[in-house]
Amino acid sequence: MEALRPLDTLNSARDKKVILELKNGKQIIGKLKAFDVHINTVLEDAEEHSDGQMVRKLGTLFIRGDTIILISPSE
Amino acid sequence: MEALRPLDTLNSARDKKVILELKNGKQIIGKLKAFDVHINTVLEDAEEHSDGQMVRKLGTLFIRGDTIILISPSE
Amino acid sequence: MEALRPLDTLNSARDKKVILELKNGKQIIGKLKAFDVHINTVLEDAEEHSDGQMVRKLGTLFIRGDTIILISPSE
Amino acid sequence: MEALRPLDTLNSARDKKVILELKNGKQIIGKLKAFDVHINTVLEDAEEHSDGQMVRKLGTLFIRGDTIILISPSE
Amino acid sequence: MEALRPLDTLNSARDKKVILELKNGKQIIGKLKAFDVHINTVLEDAEEHSDGQMVRKLGTLFIRGDTIILISPSE
Amino acid sequence: MEALRPLDTLNSARDKKVILELKNGKQIIGKLKAFDVHINTVLEDAEEHSDGQMVRKLGTLFIRGDTIILISPSE
Amino acid sequence: MEALRPLDTLNSARDKKVILELKNGKQIIGKLKAFDVHINTVLEDAEEHSDGQMVRKLGTLFIRGDTIILISPSE
Repeated sequence: MEALRPLDTLNSARDKKVILELKNGKQIIGKLKAFDVHINTVLEDAEEHSDGQMVRKLGTLFIRGDTIILISPSE
Repeated sequence: MEALRPLDTLNSARDKKVILELKNGKQIIGKLKAFDVHINTVLEDAEEHSDGQMVRKLGTLFIRGDTIILISPSE
Repeated sequence: MEALRPLDTLNSARDKKVILELKNGKQIIGKLKAFDVHINTVLEDAEEHSDGQMVRKLGTLFIRGDTIILISPSE
Repeated sequence: MEALRPLDTLNSARDKKVILELKNGKQIIGKLKAFDVHINTVLEDAEEHSDGQMVRKLGTLFIRGDTIILISPSE
Repeated sequence: MEALRPLDTLNSARDKKVILELKNGKQIIGKLKAFDVHINTVLEDAEEHSDGQMVRKLGTLFIRGDTIILISPSE
Repeated sequence: MEALRPLDTLNSARDKKVILELKNGKQIIGKLKAFDVHINTVLEDAEEHSDGQMVRKLGTLFIRGDTIILISPSE
Repeated sequence: MEALRPLDTLNSARDKKVILELKNGKQIIGKLKAFDVHINTVLEDAEEHSDGQMVRKLGTLFIRGDTIILISPSE
């Protein structure tokens, strides 16, 4: 059996809701539409959240990979 | 069907208005004219915005990719 | 005898509980499911801890390698 | 028709006046003489500006690309 | 005679006690078990020290190379 | 006619006095003896200057390229 | 005649006393034993200095290149 690779986890999260935490402390929630090996990421219906509250609707977003700390599929 | 790649999203936004957020906290709005794999980006008719207000007209801009946090096509 | 390589240590920790310390000062504990040469890492049942207390349940997490300081298999 | 690439914009600005903004907050104005793929840049007759005022004449300058945020051809 | 290379020094320190200083200001002491060209490093029986006092036992540690300032074999 | 490349400018400055500004805010003046594609640089008879005054004689210096903001040939 | 390259200067300083300045503001003095293209460096009989005074004896040191600002052969 092949060992799981980190991008497999992102691949399984395609078209699902994910939570991103960025190096500038912001939290973005949206539907994961695309990513690449640099972890450049595209979200749809993205929203910025703070303390469990939505603070801004952002729509479609291209996020540069090197600004991302973590990506959590929200089950 | 091929999976969508992050640069496809930027490609669809060519010649359209986009919002860029930079690592220095600035927000730039302009028409996306060009980008490359480093996310080096060229905007036309660019303006710096703050709290929904334009603060500076910047015209044509080459922006180095590593200073960009996100690019949002403004529908 | 071959010299041990750093990724061998991560490989032995697959499916086991590990403690990650991130550059933003956060501590994440979870089961190591995947990693790559950039140290991009996937944890399962991840929790954020502070001073020995759990502060947040995070579930499955993709963590970008360049935000990681250290990974400690918790025996 | 070929899509425009970011360096094409810099190429069109050769021998023209450009405004550079650096990561350390400084603004440099000068004639663009050379650049490369790292965005290492050479300006001639460069001046440091602050709030629309010249603060220092700098003459010919080699600027390391990774310190540059943006380059604006000043029409 | 071949000139000494930096990794030769790390190689001679394998299985010996070393002191690491990290970019976040922490000092880690442990037995050097593995390292690679990125200076990703594995320590065994690692301890965090501060002002000559042990503050935490850390056991086995994978440390990402780009967080390391220096490694000192402790003779 | 070939377009000028940034390193051509540094090449013309070999054996001449240059002013370097570093990311840590220091200004170094010296004779440019060598550089490479990373902009690693060697100066001879280098001096640290502050507000137009010499603060330290530094002699021969190897300076790592990624710490350099700009290099100005002082005509 | 071949142009001098930056690493030639380091090569001439092998087995001689050098002063290193690090990005964390520390100054290390020691005998240069080894270096590579990343400027990873090994010093012997290294000492940390502050304001012309020795503050710590460090013995043999492997220093990661990306933490180094400059290396000065002390004639």
